[in-house]
Amino acid sequence: MSTTTPDTVTALDSFFHPTGIALIGASRDPAKLSYGVLTNLLYGASSFPGPVYPVNPHADTILGRRCYPDIASVPDPVDLAILVIPADMVEGAIEACGRRGIRAAIVISGGFREVGAEGAAREQRMVATARNYGMRIMGPNGIGVIDTHTPLNTTFVVGTPTQGEIAFLSQSGALCGGIIDWVVGRGIGFSRMLSVGNEADIHEADLLPYLAEDAQTKVIAMYLEEVKDGPGFLDAIRSIAPLKPLLAIKAGRTASGQAATASHTGALASPHAAFRAACRQHGVIEFESIEAMFNGGLALAYQPLPQGSRIAIVTNAGGPAALAADTLGALGLTLARTHPAIQAELRKTLHADAQVAGPIDLLGGATEHEYAAACATLLQDPELDAILAIIVPQALVNTVAVVEQLAATLATAANPKPMILCLMGEASLSAAFAAAHRHRLPAYVFPEAAVGALATLVQRFQWLVQEHSAPSPPRDFDAAYVRALCTMLSHDNRTNLSMVQSADLLTAAGIRVPQARVAHSEEEAVQMAEAIGYPLVLKLISGAISHKTEVGGVILNLTDVATIRLAFQALRDRAAKANIPFAGVYVQRMVTGGHEIILGIKRDPTFGPLVLFGLGGIYAEALASVSFRLAPLTSLDAAEMIAEVPAAKILAGWRGQPVADMAALIDTIVRLGWLAWTCPEILEGDINPLLVLPAGQPGVSAPGALAADARFVIG
Amino acid sequence: MSTTTPDTVTALDSFFHPTGIALIGASRDPAKLSYGVLTNLLYGASSFPGPVYPVNPHADTILGRRCYPDIASVPDPVDLAILVIPADMVEGAIEACGRRGIRAAIVISGGFREVGAEGAAREQRMVATARNYGMRIMGPNGIGVIDTHTPLNTTFVVGTPTQGEIAFLSQSGALCGGIIDWVVGRGIGFSRMLSVGNEADIHEADLLPYLAEDAQTKVIAMYLEEVKDGPGFLDAIRSIAPLKPLLAIKAGRTASGQAATASHTGALASPHAAFRAACRQHGVIEFESIEAMFNGGLALAYQPLPQGSRIAIVTNAGGPAALAADTLGALGLTLARTHPAIQAELRKTLHADAQVAGPIDLLGGATEHEYAAACATLLQDPELDAILAIIVPQALVNTVAVVEQLAATLATAANPKPMILCLMGEASLSAAFAAAHRHRLPAYVFPEAAVGALATLVQRFQWLVQEHSAPSPPRDFDAAYVRALCTMLSHDNRTNLSMVQSADLLTAAGIRVPQARVAHSEEEAVQMAEAIGYPLVLKLISGAISHKTEVGGVILNLTDVATIRLAFQALRDRAAKANIPFAGVYVQRMVTGGHEIILGIKRDPTFGPLVLFGLGGIYAEALASVSFRLAPLTSLDAAEMIAEVPAAKILAGWRGQPVADMAALIDTIVRLGWLAWTCPEILEGDINPLLVLPAGQPGVSAPGALAADARFVIG
Repeated sequence: MSTTTPDTVTALDSFFHPTGIALIGASRDPAKLSYGVLTNLLYGASSFPGPVYPVNPHADTILGRRCYPDIASVPDPVDLAILVIPADMVEGAIEACGRRGIRAAIVISGGFREVGAEGAAREQRMVATARNYGMRIMGPNGIGVIDTHTPLNTTFVVGTPTQGEIAFLSQSGALCGGIIDWVVGRGIGFSRMLSVGNEADIHEADLLPYLAEDAQTKVIAMYLEEVKDGPGFLDAIRSIAPLKPLLAIKAGRTASGQAATASHTGALASPHAAFRAACRQHGVIEFESIEAMFNGGLALAYQPLPQGSRIAIVTNAGGPAALAADTLGALGLTLARTHPAIQAELRKTLHADAQVAGPIDLLGGATEHEYAAACATLLQDPELDAILAIIVPQALVNTVAVVEQLAATLATAANPKPMILCLMGEASLSAAFAAAHRHRLPAYVFPEAAVGALATLVQRFQWLVQEHSAPSPPRDFDAAYVRALCTMLSHDNRTNLSMVQSADLLTAAGIRVPQARVAHSEEEAVQMAEAIGYPLVLKLISGAISHKTEVGGVILNLTDVATIRLAFQALRDRAAKANIPFAGVYVQRMVTGGHEIILGIKRDPTFGPLVLFGLGGIYAEALASVSFRLAPLTSLDAAEMIAEVPAAKILAGWRGQPVADMAALIDTIVRLGWLAWTCPEILEGDINPLLVLPAGQPGVSAPGALAADARFVIG
Repeated sequence: MSTTTPDTVTALDSFFHPTGIALIGASRDPAKLSYGVLTNLLYGASSFPGPVYPVNPHADTILGRRCYPDIASVPDPVDLAILVIPADMVEGAIEACGRRGIRAAIVISGGFREVGAEGAAREQRMVATARNYGMRIMGPNGIGVIDTHTPLNTTFVVGTPTQGEIAFLSQSGALCGGIIDWVVGRGIGFSRMLSVGNEADIHEADLLPYLAEDAQTKVIAMYLEEVKDGPGFLDAIRSIAPLKPLLAIKAGRTASGQAATASHTGALASPHAAFRAACRQHGVIEFESIEAMFNGGLALAYQPLPQGSRIAIVTNAGGPAALAADTLGALGLTLARTHPAIQAELRKTLHADAQVAGPIDLLGGATEHEYAAACATLLQDPELDAILAIIVPQALVNTVAVVEQLAATLATAANPKPMILCLMGEASLSAAFAAAHRHRLPAYVFPEAAVGALATLVQRFQWLVQEHSAPSPPRDFDAAYVRALCTMLSHDNRTNLSMVQSADLLTAAGIRVPQARVAHSEEEAVQMAEAIGYPLVLKLISGAISHKTEVGGVILNLTDVATIRLAFQALRDRAAKANIPFAGVYVQRMVTGGHEIILGIKRDPTFGPLVLFGLGGIYAEALASVSFRLAPLTSLDAAEMIAEVPAAKILAGWRGQPVADMAALIDTIVRLGWLAWTCPEILEGDINPLLVLPAGQPGVSAPGALAADARFVIG
């Protein structure tokens, strides 16, 4: 259920801009978490500007604030309650909050779904109680909200990030503690942080619109373990990604990670392929490490997007520049070739031994003036999309001055371009890092990390410049007819469709199948063979087998009446020998000369139908190199999923292989997606092989792609 | 030329333990690099215990030390000179040093090979001068030596690493500056640092033995741009890797990186495949980022090796544990299943809601006692090889106490196991990091980095437990005969060997080829066909073509006299039509039913002959998934290079494919390596395809592997 409507946006406002806050379970004991929460609410950069009411029946005042015995006695204005009390008291407190007219509650307490069945029941009761009063709950088992602009900090974590443009949404509260400690130490600012805990009520898809509409938030980063509401999440990212960069890391990418996530949340993990497909289709930038995500987020927050992938390196050290250049290559970026006129200009201003192409190497002792001059000149190079400035501390180099001069150069440039810094070191560089952050220059210690952040900028740019139309079915796709057929074919149980039924389904979806008929007798087989034309394939029809090849149930390459007769007899004999029913044969025109492709449909519990693309053939299958997209998909999605499989380059005519009819392949993938989307009754299925014929050969009127064999499981 | 003899070890001792040091080009100006050098030599933790003599004709004293007008006037003892003077004065100064009896010189000055032809000539003259006096030179264009135990610091970099067990050898001096700043900031200790600069005289292979024999050095890390002396380097790593872990990152892994390296050093980069092969064969752990290398180095320096790859995670935060678990999976490690008895024991001591399997989650507020108790219990688990302890700062958690307690638990354990820490954060954690370093617990900010360091430990363990015998030729490999044949076949120019010559070469090396004969007439072809037996292949012999298939010069599957006659005529006609000479046909027994393999020989300019392994077939070739090893190689090397190609798993009998005769394949690879090693005349070559027959089929007396076609270029 998606709740990302404008109404909901208003409904959750109390979590970000409450009129007043009641802290239920406030304590005078500095060793209690709620003491930390009250400290963050009252003091320092996160001091909330409105009233804060400690609630505790056993105290008169806490931290100098009047304490209330219960929520009922708290005066107006108050619309947000924070609960830090034992799990078994939460339901009662929520009831009391509801009666008091509280609209929003953050439940920090643990002891719910994450501790087992009893906790899960407790969680359900709590949510039901809240719903009675139209109250929304964030948590339980999360640390709530930080908004550095309100300001507001409901967490007990020591330290509040500085004001910034990165919003962080996390399904792990404890991770937030580590991240806050890190960003505070590094001087990286946040706009908001949302620790959603168990998501008993409010989940990530509810909250993303609040980050999208927040003027202070430029970048949204997410740590996810489980997407609760697949369609709602897809709606949210689809609408937000064109406006703001969405960054994500999801636990459960490997078997070990899935085991850890399951034990942590009790969630049954959806296989990662579906989440990855969702990210690729809808412009979410997915990361493999949390540090890389924030490295990229910082670059997106601070710098404009490069308009391409040509990166100039300006450095005072050759080694780090070489490492950066290697990483450019590994991440699909290129080292800019400095334009000859720019090289000539650089040669005039720089040290005689400086290098003016490849990495621009200013030599070890380069001053701030040399850095500034080099960058000012480079900014005039039209064949350049971004600058990576590497600064290695040297006894005689004023690193702060270098950063300041680079910032000044960029600020006054006629054609500014994104700039990223690598400040390589630590002991002497804290002032330089601070200067970099002050000037919104994203700065990293290691060249590989800096290039990783650049790659994030480029990835975002490249996604934005593509057209992302909503998927629409091919004009001749008759959804009503397909749906009617599916309904007719569906059963109460999982059932394998017959060859004829599968072919009907494909045909209904506009996917071509070789001409075929069913024959129950040898004579009928011969008649049909003569009607269809040669070469032909005969396939055994038997309710008992789904993998025909295992009993020798497929005989290829039949070229005349005599071989048809022999093949018919052989199939009947093989059925008898294997002791399986013989229900006739499938007489099918044999297609030759195409590329063998495997397409599949899987149904993901969270995200719905998933389309698989892979190459046929023994090597390709052994490599298990396949790609996924969620249905329905666009032609662009289909083209990208083909390109994602490295060996698929043979379809473009590798080493004398025929050039495949890519348009037909893409069309077939799109149609299979619409078939899966239109018919929820299809539990899984595959076309194996899809034969994609050579494109546009002289004398061939209609190449295309034919589903030579297909298998669907329907329920 | 390798110079890694015991004599050389003594010869270079003056670089590490000089009796006295002359600093030529010492300056009173704090803005000069030589002032920084003198400061490091005289003050602080790096203060050299012996005499230091500033040399400068224009000063009486510098930094309170008596200054000498020239090297000739410097008194005894002195055996090391450090030169920080303009490039054009270096040759004269080296001459003067030689006359004064100096044995070792560090040339920090730049302006040599790295700035072009004139500089390269200057560099050669400098080395020639030094050789006249038996003097050795480190540099130029490097920053020299740090030995934290002597102590000695010839660099001008501000800051000296603390004493530690990591030695760092770098071909980039400027990189050293950044790394020193970083390790000083992070509290990571070094034993030695060697900045070898342009390696005009002393190069990496000369120095590695000094790091190997240094009792203070436990781990050797290298940043390389170019291996100067391939055989010397191989000798050095081969002898050192069994004793100490060797870690390396080499620039030039991608095209961008190669361009950057070339512009930086003027070096013609050897393709990276050869370096990678050298690392894999000889136990060097190669990295893709400099941070990952030092992360791994720290773990190796501080902790013993795990005896396997089962890792327990102890944490106070679920999210970071899930991220760590994902990284375990990605790096081939496994999340330990906690033994049921250990789980029961944990349940007794830990919080009721704590998780005792999967990641051991102690919950947010876990104290040092809970961490200690959990680790003490886990150390008794026999199904566990290492522990990753994740500590996220929380208001009520004393992170220093947690680190101290973990260290104490480990120190008193009956069965200690390696432990790695993830201290996730920065602002509040400097004391915890310091405590971790004090107790030799390697600590990292992010879970992914911590798991990366664990993977380094496991990789080292797994390499050490393998047997690494020196390659030895198969017993029947007649090197003298092979060499004589090669000499006979070799030419002054690059020449393609004929099919007959190639087959002879393979046969001489003990590689099986299908039975074959040359026929010059149709009658001869028929005779030979009858003698060899069917099926047969006929191949066109023509001096003008090396790719026979392009002119239709190969006709397969000939089964009787009639088809032999037709094929002979067809080949003669095709040669005429293509206007190329017809020199007869090659009548070859056709091999069927095997796996198609491609083997190759390339000759690397640095490391010599390189053997390539890949799968045949269009998909495999399109994927270009191949592996390399240096010749000669062992059977283990061959088995590993096969395993490195993912699709090669089909050789083990994937999906009904035949199981290949792996012993024959490995034997063929080993023989090809010995052929390449024995015959430097072979410039390149390949066997394409090598047909590897199914292993041990009943009725087949000798499966094996046959080279169906081969091509060698000899010079």
